[in-house]
Amino acid sequence: MNRLQNLRKALTEEKLDAVLISSLPNVTYLAGFSGFTTMDRDAYLLVTKTKQYIFTHGIYKEIVAKTVKDFELIEIKREKPISVALRVIVEQEKIKKLGFEAFDLKVNEYDKLIKQVSKKLLHPADPVNKLRIIKTPDEIQTIKKACALGDQAFTYILKQIKESVTETDLATELEFFIKRNGGDISFAPIVAFGPNASQPHHVPDGTKLKKNSFILFDFGVLLNNYCSDMSRTIFFGKANKDQKNAYEAVVTAQEESMKLITSRLSLKKQIKGSEVDKVAREYLTLQNFPSMPHSLGHGIGLEVHEPPRLTPISDEELKPGMVFSIEPGVYLPGEFGIRIEDLFAIEDKKLIPLTKAQSKFIEL
Amino acid sequence: MNRLQNLRKALTEEKLDAVLISSLPNVTYLAGFSGFTTMDRDAYLLVTKTKQYIFTHGIYKEIVAKTVKDFELIEIKREKPISVALRVIVEQEKIKKLGFEAFDLKVNEYDKLIKQVSKKLLHPADPVNKLRIIKTPDEIQTIKKACALGDQAFTYILKQIKESVTETDLATELEFFIKRNGGDISFAPIVAFGPNASQPHHVPDGTKLKKNSFILFDFGVLLNNYCSDMSRTIFFGKANKDQKNAYEAVVTAQEESMKLITSRLSLKKQIKGSEVDKVAREYLTLQNFPSMPHSLGHGIGLEVHEPPRLTPISDEELKPGMVFSIEPGVYLPGEFGIRIEDLFAIEDKKLIPLTKAQSKFIEL
Repeated sequence: MNRLQNLRKALTEEKLDAVLISSLPNVTYLAGFSGFTTMDRDAYLLVTKTKQYIFTHGIYKEIVAKTVKDFELIEIKREKPISVALRVIVEQEKIKKLGFEAFDLKVNEYDKLIKQVSKKLLHPADPVNKLRIIKTPDEIQTIKKACALGDQAFTYILKQIKESVTETDLATELEFFIKRNGGDISFAPIVAFGPNASQPHHVPDGTKLKKNSFILFDFGVLLNNYCSDMSRTIFFGKANKDQKNAYEAVVTAQEESMKLITSRLSLKKQIKGSEVDKVAREYLTLQNFPSMPHSLGHGIGLEVHEPPRLTPISDEELKPGMVFSIEPGVYLPGEFGIRIEDLFAIEDKKLIPLTKAQSKFIEL
Repeated sequence: MNRLQNLRKALTEEKLDAVLISSLPNVTYLAGFSGFTTMDRDAYLLVTKTKQYIFTHGIYKEIVAKTVKDFELIEIKREKPISVALRVIVEQEKIKKLGFEAFDLKVNEYDKLIKQVSKKLLHPADPVNKLRIIKTPDEIQTIKKACALGDQAFTYILKQIKESVTETDLATELEFFIKRNGGDISFAPIVAFGPNASQPHHVPDGTKLKKNSFILFDFGVLLNNYCSDMSRTIFFGKANKDQKNAYEAVVTAQEESMKLITSRLSLKKQIKGSEVDKVAREYLTLQNFPSMPHSLGHGIGLEVHEPPRLTPISDEELKPGMVFSIEPGVYLPGEFGIRIEDLFAIEDKKLIPLTKAQSKFIEL
């Protein structure tokens, strides 16, 4: 119940009487139940100063009653939607200031709410993401395990590479390996051959592997609700000098970012996401590569992308307990794309790599 | 470009000058590109009376420019977010009434929009779902193919059933079969043994199969962006009279719904979703089974759940071109759950089954 205690502390700090949670990862985080779907809005939570409620449909009543015991279960129905159920509690508990997740709630959900609950009561608030950004050692341990399975999957997939194999074949093999070994995928794996990889989010297709091309892998494992995420780029055949140089530039860009974080941590000085993005980005542009069309990194946990952000404008300070990716890339349309992505945690003022697969240049 | 023409007709009818599309399936429907992720907001569309725009990040620029040729590509960035890009066009094209998808847009996205675009211009609108609810013969054909692969997967999975196999084993096997055969899953398969199935959305776990229990399968195929969805419940062992009766009640409930639709269609009389739900629901409660904790059915297409809805309060009329599920169920906590789900299309005033797997009682 530590998470609820921390949330209540945050409510007090933000002078809120309660908060309505709609975002699915936040529901999972607080209620410890991950069986809701993304197809419909299956549940909401309401956390007040003294009580916590879970609102869900009849379809989930049995399992929620059994597994989410710390929350009072309120069934919502077409005749008694969340807006009505919420009004009853707001009146009972005399809630005057109610936070809601404006980054998640849909405009029409909000419009229905304010027909039952005065608009003046409602305040955009995001206390749960602020808690989630700092992971406990247990959470970091879980992510580490997800990363370890990802590393194994990478070792496995290297053995499946042969001429004429398709991107889809390898993506499917990666996925099956992860699932056979007790994990799930945290997102649809990216496998991109040669010029396909210049699109950072290429969707694997029937492209066949030809000699002398890069292969970019970007994939992640989902284990006990926590995500990993890693990218590796290897060469099938014999790379030329330009290709090797581009690869080494990406490696160095990642190392420069790591060095900056490490030195700031050891000096006990603050380090912002934007500074880390800048050092990698500038290193690459100084080598005459185009500026990356994506940010350098992102936090990860219950979601693949969550705070902190390592973007050119991110003010977020990197702090102990944070877990994030560092993933510089070089993308040359018509030629190739290279990305190397690892996850790191800050623990005891140290930058700890969670992914361990080698990023030395591999030619197969 | 038929879809855009139809959308413009709808805009004229709703007296809108333009509509901002944010929902991912609607983006896929109109732009014909399905490579965006659900992790972040990757794209928006704006369709005006004469032009159509696609807004996306640098990460997707190359692929969108290559594949979404009918839309003018506008890159959005942190420095030039969607709200600003939109304002420019609203001013240029003198848009006075701009629809937006209130069922999809987040409150904080809306709040950012109205800092750039006058609130008075913005009107909740949902023209695309109104188009999508009526499928073309091609779309129905695609869903039919997805259903056929689902039927094959069901035949395959029957052969994998043996004592002590786990729910997770069978769910993984179903998924791998679908993927090995060129499809994807439209949602995480449900496999539930015995009492687990009384939770309609049970998440498969390590439960081992024991003799004399029901097995409920609910799964779907994703093929060329279109979804199938089917449920079958079979018996492992020898069922007793009560178990058989419950099964037959579900079969009959489904047949009663089908009969009602068929007779109304042949009489050229209207039939509402709520009437179909009612006939199945009442049949089951008359047999002394509890009222289903879910609706009888849902439309399906680019999304697993989309209009029309077959719920107790659905006013939607079932019309030619619609594709939907009919999925009655009996759920007895502590004992078992039974659900049979098939997809149907209304074509030429006939109710056409798209799933073909038998629903005769199976004992294995």
